[in-house]
Amino acid sequence: MSFIIEFEPIGIRLVCEEPVTVAAAARQAGVAIRSLCGGKASCGKCVVRVDPAPASAPGEAEQELLAGLDPAEGWRLACRAVIATETRVYVPVDSQTESQVIQTEGLEWRSAPQPPVRMLPLSLTPPSLDDQTSDLERVAEALRQEGVHDAWAGLPALQAMRGALRQGRWQISVALRGSEIVGAFPARLPQAVGLAVDVGTTKVACYLVSLETGRTLSAAGVMNPQIAYGEDVMSRLEAAMVDPANADRMAHDVIEAINGVAAEMCAAHGLAPEHLLEACLVGNTAMHHLFARLPTRPLAVAPFVPALSSPLDVRADRLGLRAAAGARAHLPPPIAGFVGSDHLAFLLAAGFGEDGRVRLGLDIGTNTEIALQARGQIVSCSTASGPAFEGAHIRHGMRAALGAVERVTIDDEGLAKCDVIGGGPAVGICGSGILDAVAELRRTGIINARGRMDPDRPHVRLEEGGLPAYRLVRGSDGHRDVWLSQGDIDQVLLAKGAMRAGIDILLGELGLGPEAVDEIVIAGAFGSYLDPQSAVRLGLLPGVPPERIHAVGNAAGTGARMMLASTECRARAQALARRIRYLELTVVPGFNRYFAQGIRLPAV
Amino acid sequence: MSFIIEFEPIGIRLVCEEPVTVAAAARQAGVAIRSLCGGKASCGKCVVRVDPAPASAPGEAEQELLAGLDPAEGWRLACRAVIATETRVYVPVDSQTESQVIQTEGLEWRSAPQPPVRMLPLSLTPPSLDDQTSDLERVAEALRQEGVHDAWAGLPALQAMRGALRQGRWQISVALRGSEIVGAFPARLPQAVGLAVDVGTTKVACYLVSLETGRTLSAAGVMNPQIAYGEDVMSRLEAAMVDPANADRMAHDVIEAINGVAAEMCAAHGLAPEHLLEACLVGNTAMHHLFARLPTRPLAVAPFVPALSSPLDVRADRLGLRAAAGARAHLPPPIAGFVGSDHLAFLLAAGFGEDGRVRLGLDIGTNTEIALQARGQIVSCSTASGPAFEGAHIRHGMRAALGAVERVTIDDEGLAKCDVIGGGPAVGICGSGILDAVAELRRTGIINARGRMDPDRPHVRLEEGGLPAYRLVRGSDGHRDVWLSQGDIDQVLLAKGAMRAGIDILLGELGLGPEAVDEIVIAGAFGSYLDPQSAVRLGLLPGVPPERIHAVGNAAGTGARMMLASTECRARAQALARRIRYLELTVVPGFNRYFAQGIRLPAV
Repeated sequence: MSFIIEFEPIGIRLVCEEPVTVAAAARQAGVAIRSLCGGKASCGKCVVRVDPAPASAPGEAEQELLAGLDPAEGWRLACRAVIATETRVYVPVDSQTESQVIQTEGLEWRSAPQPPVRMLPLSLTPPSLDDQTSDLERVAEALRQEGVHDAWAGLPALQAMRGALRQGRWQISVALRGSEIVGAFPARLPQAVGLAVDVGTTKVACYLVSLETGRTLSAAGVMNPQIAYGEDVMSRLEAAMVDPANADRMAHDVIEAINGVAAEMCAAHGLAPEHLLEACLVGNTAMHHLFARLPTRPLAVAPFVPALSSPLDVRADRLGLRAAAGARAHLPPPIAGFVGSDHLAFLLAAGFGEDGRVRLGLDIGTNTEIALQARGQIVSCSTASGPAFEGAHIRHGMRAALGAVERVTIDDEGLAKCDVIGGGPAVGICGSGILDAVAELRRTGIINARGRMDPDRPHVRLEEGGLPAYRLVRGSDGHRDVWLSQGDIDQVLLAKGAMRAGIDILLGELGLGPEAVDEIVIAGAFGSYLDPQSAVRLGLLPGVPPERIHAVGNAAGTGARMMLASTECRARAQALARRIRYLELTVVPGFNRYFAQGIRLPAV
Repeated sequence: MSFIIEFEPIGIRLVCEEPVTVAAAARQAGVAIRSLCGGKASCGKCVVRVDPAPASAPGEAEQELLAGLDPAEGWRLACRAVIATETRVYVPVDSQTESQVIQTEGLEWRSAPQPPVRMLPLSLTPPSLDDQTSDLERVAEALRQEGVHDAWAGLPALQAMRGALRQGRWQISVALRGSEIVGAFPARLPQAVGLAVDVGTTKVACYLVSLETGRTLSAAGVMNPQIAYGEDVMSRLEAAMVDPANADRMAHDVIEAINGVAAEMCAAHGLAPEHLLEACLVGNTAMHHLFARLPTRPLAVAPFVPALSSPLDVRADRLGLRAAAGARAHLPPPIAGFVGSDHLAFLLAAGFGEDGRVRLGLDIGTNTEIALQARGQIVSCSTASGPAFEGAHIRHGMRAALGAVERVTIDDEGLAKCDVIGGGPAVGICGSGILDAVAELRRTGIINARGRMDPDRPHVRLEEGGLPAYRLVRGSDGHRDVWLSQGDIDQVLLAKGAMRAGIDILLGELGLGPEAVDEIVIAGAFGSYLDPQSAVRLGLLPGVPPERIHAVGNAAGTGARMMLASTECRARAQALARRIRYLELTVVPGFNRYFAQGIRLPAV
């Protein structure tokens, strides 16, 4: 059951599939809400009014920070208020960061848009027996008078133009990409819009963007329907190898899902998909190859070679994407077989390559892509961290959603105290909660440096098979207990080992140690919920001060929007892509040593 | 039942659907056979050896010109020998005009080809875990070493390249269009070939052409399957208006017909359609719009405006044309709603715009397109001449094929003597025969200057309805009589009136009279059979000496081949198209007067 959140006064709509905090929704939608504490309910800058008021009451800290504003009237902190139904969110001016800036929590995009496509209204003299000038030449002549020379059109736009001219009675709007006519519409069109898409393995984020202002008009997410062919990238690639028809179906399914979301977003603004004048799609390399129908087998087997590592401007209809007749889809370059254009989009949005600091960028998922900027270089790698931080392969794991344990502290008695998303009873534990839990279990010595759980501690029991498990939550009122098993902890350690090995190898490649890192930027949902102190304490991240660890939410989506709306951003991304040197971890000498070291937990 | 004629030693194959003279077949196939008399069996230059020898014996004149060569061994004149079965034609050196020159009887194309696409074999180092360079970058790097910089590829070629690289084990052939990779093939390809097509309303002529030498490797014609939607252009346009699905079906049908012929021609050379690296399609503007799926309604109603009047390079697969993944189809510019790119191709092949002579170019059909070059200008028009010269709407009319009366003389007794194509009994009369007959009927006074037939003359009878008819052939051995009715003559006069009005209006537009014409060039089958003296005598053509009237066969096909194989020819055609000024006859003052004058027959 999807529902819509509308942000006022900016008028951005977001289609949601599951309960979210206002802050997370705003991040997804590209709405800029102030936050100094990074969503920890400690700065009180993110005050919003929510209509209708959420069912859950504010906690004590939130109540205090609201400073007299009445929760019954809908006043809440964006980082705490959870929305699960159709809602209007009013963002007061004081809570807005710079308006009309696409941002991902502190990462702002300030360039004026340099749109690849613009719209021109034209008023033409109708043809007659004395003036049989062809349609294209008539339009080209009118464009010459507007200062556009050598206008031309491909076949699809010509086909559309012929009807538009007559339907519009020789009053049309022409979409121009340089001197190429990519669309023609009867009469005047309200605005030039495009579609930015971040095709994730699990979720597909779509943004309807004004090409004139660069503003996001609507944002909506949808589950990637390819999940029917496997949860992770590798199982999809295998499905494509088993039967090429699977590859076709996966391409078709994801594009149709995008078409569906795009049509909804367009309709909400009185537009049709045929009004989309340009698209920009980012994704990991497997997603990129699948939706571009490029053979994926070489991605699945060594040496994991992508079809190309340059950007591709392809007519949208070649992808099956509904858009203006001659509209193009810009596909930014993949970096390597396992580092995709989504990572590039993230690095672009996060401003990598633009200063001299030593910066780590992580996109944590089943595969974790890592980039390190230092000493004028950028190196990147991908590491198979597994889905533990997404709550998968964890007995009581779940995504960061309503009912998930997201924060854990363990007291001296070994009793866990948990924060649950939405404030209600716990139904499971998400990535950030798992991370907290393991850090606390280690701090309290319930697990040792190799992650072995002490079966003699309180709240630990021996399970069938003789392995211990720790009770995180004692269920009440009919809710189940939430446990963390030895197996769960092993999963977390494997993920941590892989990630940390990647980080250390990149640092080593540039001759640096962990202490050299100035800043860590983390993309993705996990990063938004992650407690930096836990991550550092656990050794998942190098030991930098927590305020230098930044979660930037769906930065790949931001990057996609930047590249959709601005040719300058495209050029910057392309230059960035050329600078990034990909490191294949499997051939790095001593990888196993790094990995074994990464798995270990710190001394208490 | 189609059969193949193979010309040796040039190795060109032609697929035929019906019996033809060797000379006509050679014209269609672009094989250059000498001829001084223009196919009148009087010069004896076109001696060929035919294997197997044709069933019909040579006539007396032919026998004499063979000068002792034995017809039983297959020696014949190309202009007389009719072939109706699979045959090998040997063209002796003495009977060849300059070899490897595409010609259309006296119109030769001497430029070296400047092909739009070339083929390069590449030998690549396979990727490894230490060298994960993407496919495209690997190929681009190899191309850089061959001096090709900035190589790129669109999505279809990228898709094909990925398979070709692995199938060819990193030995591939790459088809390059400028710096664009339009095809990639495992291992080496024998040669770079393309497809030229002249899409006529009735027939579609296809040519397989070497892009390296410009030579025609195969030629084949096929009936335009759109004929199911009407015989002429206007009825097809109406069918498209009645139901847009008809337009789709017509586009699909003609392209599938081309695909079928192209596949056969490719197979005969050990190639697949996917080896076609470029295509060039010409046709009248309705055909052009139909196969390009451009809306045709504006062509069918005043002011008859085409969608464009510039060339279009469109990916072949957008037309449904089978070719290399990224291959393009070049569609030369239509000139006006009723003067198509086929007329441009004809004028290009005939060298219009290249000298200072006063030249008339005619493409005679249901619509006759006329161009006049004079005084540094080129003007053109189209006139609805009707299908009389194609043998349609004539009681015993037929196409110029086996059994058709093609020459008529009437003696002092009013008795007709007829030459029949193939030498057997007459079964009907084709355009050139009709023209001869009308000229002779006028010369002998059997019809008057307004075309009325004198019912009191021998061989004339009054038919039901009270109108006279003239017996051209008295049937024997069970064959029918062939008659020419008053209605037939009226049809011819209407056609003549329309054509001559067009000619005179163009001449008047440039301030010239008929006597100013230096040369008349006639394209199409009718022109090849036409007796210039009859045409002049009838007043169909201005009175220029017969030797200045040239039939050039399928010159549009020649022009298409020129533009397929040579970018220089494309540029020349484009410049020519820009120079041609189209005259809409319906708005010319005094059109009716010109028409009435054109209908009249000359005094005897």
